[in-house]
Amino acid sequence: MAEAEELIAKMGQAARAAAVELAQAPAERKHAALIGAAHAIRDQLPEILEANAKDLEFGREKGLSEAMIDRLRLDEDRLRGIEDGLRAVAEQDDPVGQVIAEWDRPNGLHIQRVRTPIGVIGVIYESRPNVTADAGALALKSGNAVILRGGSESLHSSQAIHGCMVQGLRQAGLPEAAIQLVPTRDRAAVSAMLAAQGLIDVIIPRGGKGLVGLVSREARVPVFAHLEGVCHIYVDRDADPEMARRVVLNAKTRRTGICGAAECLLIDWPFYTQHGPALIEDLLAAGVEVRAEGELAKIAGTVRAAPEDFGREFLDSIIAVKLVDGVDEAIGHIRRFGSQHTEAILTANDATAARFFAGLDSAILMRNASTQFADGGEFGMGAEIGIATGKLHARGPVGAEQLTSFKYLVTGEGAIRA
Amino acid sequence: MAEAEELIAKMGQAARAAAVELAQAPAERKHAALIGAAHAIRDQLPEILEANAKDLEFGREKGLSEAMIDRLRLDEDRLRGIEDGLRAVAEQDDPVGQVIAEWDRPNGLHIQRVRTPIGVIGVIYESRPNVTADAGALALKSGNAVILRGGSESLHSSQAIHGCMVQGLRQAGLPEAAIQLVPTRDRAAVSAMLAAQGLIDVIIPRGGKGLVGLVSREARVPVFAHLEGVCHIYVDRDADPEMARRVVLNAKTRRTGICGAAECLLIDWPFYTQHGPALIEDLLAAGVEVRAEGELAKIAGTVRAAPEDFGREFLDSIIAVKLVDGVDEAIGHIRRFGSQHTEAILTANDATAARFFAGLDSAILMRNASTQFADGGEFGMGAEIGIATGKLHARGPVGAEQLTSFKYLVTGEGAIRA
Repeated sequence: MAEAEELIAKMGQAARAAAVELAQAPAERKHAALIGAAHAIRDQLPEILEANAKDLEFGREKGLSEAMIDRLRLDEDRLRGIEDGLRAVAEQDDPVGQVIAEWDRPNGLHIQRVRTPIGVIGVIYESRPNVTADAGALALKSGNAVILRGGSESLHSSQAIHGCMVQGLRQAGLPEAAIQLVPTRDRAAVSAMLAAQGLIDVIIPRGGKGLVGLVSREARVPVFAHLEGVCHIYVDRDADPEMARRVVLNAKTRRTGICGAAECLLIDWPFYTQHGPALIEDLLAAGVEVRAEGELAKIAGTVRAAPEDFGREFLDSIIAVKLVDGVDEAIGHIRRFGSQHTEAILTANDATAARFFAGLDSAILMRNASTQFADGGEFGMGAEIGIATGKLHARGPVGAEQLTSFKYLVTGEGAIRA
Repeated sequence: MAEAEELIAKMGQAARAAAVELAQAPAERKHAALIGAAHAIRDQLPEILEANAKDLEFGREKGLSEAMIDRLRLDEDRLRGIEDGLRAVAEQDDPVGQVIAEWDRPNGLHIQRVRTPIGVIGVIYESRPNVTADAGALALKSGNAVILRGGSESLHSSQAIHGCMVQGLRQAGLPEAAIQLVPTRDRAAVSAMLAAQGLIDVIIPRGGKGLVGLVSREARVPVFAHLEGVCHIYVDRDADPEMARRVVLNAKTRRTGICGAAECLLIDWPFYTQHGPALIEDLLAAGVEVRAEGELAKIAGTVRAAPEDFGREFLDSIIAVKLVDGVDEAIGHIRRFGSQHTEAILTANDATAARFFAGLDSAILMRNASTQFADGGEFGMGAEIGIATGKLHARGPVGAEQLTSFKYLVTGEGAIRA
């Protein structure tokens, strides 16, 4: 344990020193580093795929499931996606130094609130090697140093991608310690990061409930995370039925394993009596296991829902469904069973939509849109380092802007206080 | 301990329920509650002073110092100040529901980021009963429920003031549990609050280093705090000497016991050789103990500074002074010895000022203004619940706006994700 603590202490100090430099790095240099990293990804495609093959081989030997192997796997397409992500973040406005607010005071002060980096970010993630690039890029864009600790299964792939990030830094004349990758598989490194107050300013876990739960429970360092995406769609009596069919199907089935996938469908009674079971039948036809309560359980092909199916994140082709009587009952259900991630209402009624928006406190509330849009890229952030459902500092998709803090710049003309 | 935990759990649940209501309370109602509280303070002046007399009597019996008795004391002037503070917060723009940002996406989404309350705030404070009103007002304004735990010495005064706050809530038809005061002197209540994750969303300590240090160390709940205000003034070679004399004197002597009082004066060599020791002599003439290093120790009346006098918060009529060679050395010193609270540069040179602003990461950086302005009221927030020097969520003076979070409201026209 002492060894891991020493390693993290060293990396933390190097990150702290790099952060001081990054805080004042011109936007063009950070841009150049990201473009350089993107070029390196393209140039070193064979080497990265070779490293990935090593990870895949070890993964198979370890008996990882096909789903997990798939999360590990890199191919030309996915690497092109990583490259595009780096370029997208490069093209974002640089948040550092942006004037968030500005005002004058009768006491003679002119006050500006300007964005600054947070400092040192720690990212702890499982399986998917692209996080190495996404997280590295967003941290750099926002002027932060980052310490990455990826999953053991993807160590070689992460190292290869990290090498490309470092190449970009070097080319742009930025400190290599801006983006560090923990070089060992030692789990003690994770614990050391969670305890590294003063060295790491915030930790972001990316992965399954086990990892996120562990980090949230044990970290002494502040954490931006979401534990679950128990996302709801409420189809109101005033919803357009054709639109509702399209959106509900997309929200459940586009990709079932992401946090923005809808896990619970609430249908307003009058919608059901007026338009019938088409929503349910569409889901069944798409191969979704529909766990229904009450009246909806009479629909052929559904399975009876157990109480614990509500408030549950399936991350699979399964959905819980029930009827509710109006938006207030929908709000009550979501308050009780939701995870404060993303909830959607489908309706043409402005007042009902406003009530839904006002009555819920999730990070993302949507109207007439699929919950699958809960994503930093879709929000226009270029990429995201994760989605946060806590209420402090960062909420919803965490892009470069959310990885900043601020300071006040106050100018007087010799103002003294009475 | 179990008793205190039970009490805090009960108060937390009541606060949580009140918070749900407050989140949707119209601005006019919160305004009315604050004006009602201000009226009640005026109407009940005699009763509040009577309660305060009780606290002062107990305080003297306990042998509290004159300084501490003075912090406890209320009189007509101070109560008028509390009343004014309530009105000032009432007149602030209501932050809840404000649209922070708004944009459209090519995928058909219209996205708004809007302010929401955080939820439940805990304030733990010592001695000064006005915090009961300030903290209660700011929490209410930002739609949060608040649990106040004041110093034992000011329990009667805090209870009297709290009674006025509750009267305002009642008149405005808002839940009384919006502003609760812990009714006991039991120190275990503090520990219970610090552990109340899920019930309390953020804790703000107001008081001396002992309290703030304890809270910051032990809290499992997130904390907004500043531990020390080791504020620096750097007088650059290009500073106007007359302005410098006024500002330095104000920064040290206006009120020595507040966090924004300057504790260390750094003078640029060329300023000293050009303008002489007037800055030091002004401080000495004002009765300040000047602890000087190096060349400045030759000035008659100064005391030789010990190494630990730098980076030290005196909260007294004492200041540490030394010469530096230019803004970079000043920056280096402040980075090493500062507490990330407030630092000021006095200069007519724009480039030097910009370098100072860029090279430091304190919550507040000032140019040609007294550090004594580090205050929410002076910043235009009506009042402040404290000053934060951490880097997450709140930084600098914490007013109603900083006591908010945000959520995304996303509208589509049946948008589905590809």
